[in-house]
Amino acid sequence: MEIVSSQIIGYRNAQSNGATFHALNPLTGMLLPTAFQEATPTEIVETIVLAHKSFPAYRKTTAVRRSLFLEAIAANLEALGDDLLQVIHEETALPIARLAGERSRTTSQLRLFARLLLDGNWNKKIVDEALPDRKPVARPEIIQLQTPIGVVAIFGASNFPLAFSVAGGDTASALAAGCPVVFKAHPAHPATCQLVGRSIAKAALDTGMPDGVFSMLHGFSHELGGMLVTNPLIKAVAFTGSYKGGKALYDLAVRRKEPIPVYAEMGSVNPVFFLPEAVKQGGEALAKQFAQSVTLGSGQFCTNPGLSVFLNNRESKLFIQKLADAMSATEVHPLLTKGIAEAYETGIEREMTLPGATAVTKKTETRIQPFILSTSAKQVLQHSDYFEEVFGPSTLAVLADDYNEMYQLAERMPGQLTGTIHAAENDYREAKELMDRLTQKVGRLVMNGFPTGVEVCHAMVHGGPFPATTDSRVTSVGTTSIYRFTRPVCYQNIPSDFFN
Amino acid sequence: MEIVSSQIIGYRNAQSNGATFHALNPLTGMLLPTAFQEATPTEIVETIVLAHKSFPAYRKTTAVRRSLFLEAIAANLEALGDDLLQVIHEETALPIARLAGERSRTTSQLRLFARLLLDGNWNKKIVDEALPDRKPVARPEIIQLQTPIGVVAIFGASNFPLAFSVAGGDTASALAAGCPVVFKAHPAHPATCQLVGRSIAKAALDTGMPDGVFSMLHGFSHELGGMLVTNPLIKAVAFTGSYKGGKALYDLAVRRKEPIPVYAEMGSVNPVFFLPEAVKQGGEALAKQFAQSVTLGSGQFCTNPGLSVFLNNRESKLFIQKLADAMSATEVHPLLTKGIAEAYETGIEREMTLPGATAVTKKTETRIQPFILSTSAKQVLQHSDYFEEVFGPSTLAVLADDYNEMYQLAERMPGQLTGTIHAAENDYREAKELMDRLTQKVGRLVMNGFPTGVEVCHAMVHGGPFPATTDSRVTSVGTTSIYRFTRPVCYQNIPSDFFN
Repeated sequence: MEIVSSQIIGYRNAQSNGATFHALNPLTGMLLPTAFQEATPTEIVETIVLAHKSFPAYRKTTAVRRSLFLEAIAANLEALGDDLLQVIHEETALPIARLAGERSRTTSQLRLFARLLLDGNWNKKIVDEALPDRKPVARPEIIQLQTPIGVVAIFGASNFPLAFSVAGGDTASALAAGCPVVFKAHPAHPATCQLVGRSIAKAALDTGMPDGVFSMLHGFSHELGGMLVTNPLIKAVAFTGSYKGGKALYDLAVRRKEPIPVYAEMGSVNPVFFLPEAVKQGGEALAKQFAQSVTLGSGQFCTNPGLSVFLNNRESKLFIQKLADAMSATEVHPLLTKGIAEAYETGIEREMTLPGATAVTKKTETRIQPFILSTSAKQVLQHSDYFEEVFGPSTLAVLADDYNEMYQLAERMPGQLTGTIHAAENDYREAKELMDRLTQKVGRLVMNGFPTGVEVCHAMVHGGPFPATTDSRVTSVGTTSIYRFTRPVCYQNIPSDFFN
Repeated sequence: MEIVSSQIIGYRNAQSNGATFHALNPLTGMLLPTAFQEATPTEIVETIVLAHKSFPAYRKTTAVRRSLFLEAIAANLEALGDDLLQVIHEETALPIARLAGERSRTTSQLRLFARLLLDGNWNKKIVDEALPDRKPVARPEIIQLQTPIGVVAIFGASNFPLAFSVAGGDTASALAAGCPVVFKAHPAHPATCQLVGRSIAKAALDTGMPDGVFSMLHGFSHELGGMLVTNPLIKAVAFTGSYKGGKALYDLAVRRKEPIPVYAEMGSVNPVFFLPEAVKQGGEALAKQFAQSVTLGSGQFCTNPGLSVFLNNRESKLFIQKLADAMSATEVHPLLTKGIAEAYETGIEREMTLPGATAVTKKTETRIQPFILSTSAKQVLQHSDYFEEVFGPSTLAVLADDYNEMYQLAERMPGQLTGTIHAAENDYREAKELMDRLTQKVGRLVMNGFPTGVEVCHAMVHGGPFPATTDSRVTSVGTTSIYRFTRPVCYQNIPSDFFN
């Protein structure tokens, strides 16, 4: 499939003269053929100004028209056929079957927001009717509605080149809300971004959206991101990726003359607590399921369970050994980028130097492999470095001497996207204690399941307290994610025909 | 009424040895007799730790029990009788009748939140039911609920010693949400704070709330505020006051290791657009109503209309003259504090030095007086200093040469709490254009009314884009203000008896 690289500035494909870069094929380690250019400062400003100019027309489009726009994006993605999957596979090494699933998740997500717009309740209308006879003063009618906040800058993730990238949940929810989007293409999959970005621009044109409602800029340096976040016409930022990246954008945004919200989803260790009866009853089958969750997608999920907690007894130790056996037997596909692979190796090495860390699986020389370390709860409580995420197919098995140590772990851990409890009925008393504590630390609480696999639905919360995200009050997945890009306005004593 | 000054540390009245201060009687300029002590660093930490310790028990109280707590606070306030009003009057010079109204607003507000808790929908439950037969994978049940975020530090305002102070909307909504409150007493009305704070502590004790759910610390220095906001156990901040004060707290909060949300409501100029037919039809009666709005409470409201815009014609000029006559004839009561009075004088003087500013009312020598300046839209568009708030009974009348200049004013002004349009039917076309632009800049849009008078109801938005507030996504008045102190958590596959 031929890729014509360009900046996508509204309806215009700009042939840029910025610095050139190539993506890498993670399977071969070789550069891919298409050359991409980083957007220049002039192009960045031009893009943001165009997006801003499109806002008055875009915010006035009806929900039905925006719904058609989202439907058209989904249809255009599907029309790219399996050639798209091949392009993504070359850039990410993710298996074709997984990518097909991710495509279906992405188009379903677009259509879910399209349906949300049609249902009419999405803007959370609240009405206090007029009380003309109230004493001492009459009350006018007051109506609260959500209004879009303006141009949104979005930074996608490397690990979901469709579902958390150009046409992913952030873009879908911002466009649904009525906000123009400037997307920063991910330099690890620029060809993917190019194809998907063109699909969105075409959908905008075909459904009569104003020029500038969607743009996409290529780049590999931090300057591009900084220029987007600090431009006064940008009114919010969405980001999925590392703590370092997300926190840097947050720091820029809150230091602006006009601070803006940053919705950075930065990952976490997603603790899984295995209570003793559940371990006993689950046995090898449960250990195998857990091994699958840890190694799924080579462990490259924000919700990957990087920390598991057990009561220190014979069954738990046996369980961890079964887990190690299952993980060692698992073939994982190569990691997404050289950077991620290196960080995984150094992350494991760093963890192994922590006091009390023991390798459960044997570390082989070079190939990326699933890995388990174990340590005691006492060590983790003393060394908070144990809570640092190692992005990849590993987990740290923590042995607690009693329930109190488990509770302390839950209380002392930093904010997490998810927390999971495995409990049989005999464990329920302790599970409830854990649940109360974990609720304070997570965006999603899972019981007798695994955190990997984030359902796109109405009730989903993919978020959580800092440092899992920079804003615990929102979710980046599910329909309520739209409210990241709206704010309430109330209308007092306004004639009803003003709303048409 | 005898006032016994103390820090209120949960159920304990702490006799502090911090620096002593007295409040001033604004009518006499004399110090009031009661000596208050600033909380010491030790007391501040002790208070926050106690609040944090109360959180696990408080967050588990049922909504019904929190509802009883709020009702008890309202009853205790009423039980203080008119002695309370006398104490407030001495500290603020606000008329007794106005204070009686504010007390009724405050108790109604507490009872509104009490009713909200009883109605059961307040926690915005969202359910995605289990789909056990879904292919390729089953969907577990997922339920989204709001959870309280932790200890909240609250800073009250000087201009509403009841409704935006110790037992005001911030405290009521935080306590309703399930969050312990540490209140920073306002040094301009410490005796008022003392009486109200004791009423809350007594209500907590009487309704069996955990010790530490409410505390109140006195202080006049910035250090106390800084220590509250930067303490890691504080999870959110609410503030009503000046831009300088609110922005300083925001800057501290976003630079913490764990950043936290700051809900600072910092006031604005609340533009009122008078369209020509409305001016013609409204005439002197409308001018008098507007004069009342500008001078209400001596202009000491966040929603005071500090900027009014007219089409430059004969009727507008006549209207402004009638407005000036009405304002000059208005007796205003003394301003709340010496600082506010001085800032009002220097604010007027600063505005008069701006290019093109003309005084419409005559400035007399010393007494605080209602004041109007006028200028052209062209000058305002060139000199953004015109958008700066002058807190007090004044307004700037801006003459626009055409509608386009009016629209530009709406587009270029900074974020506002409110925007108001006066329009007769013949003005509707232009009113719609203005409304579209103002919606982008305000939290509340008013038609053919005045921004002063903030209804406490479900639909109210008392908020708006920066610099009116530090977080445009929320309101500080009305029932939805509770969501400043909660965040969503989703529960995946959790047995229903875990929620009891």
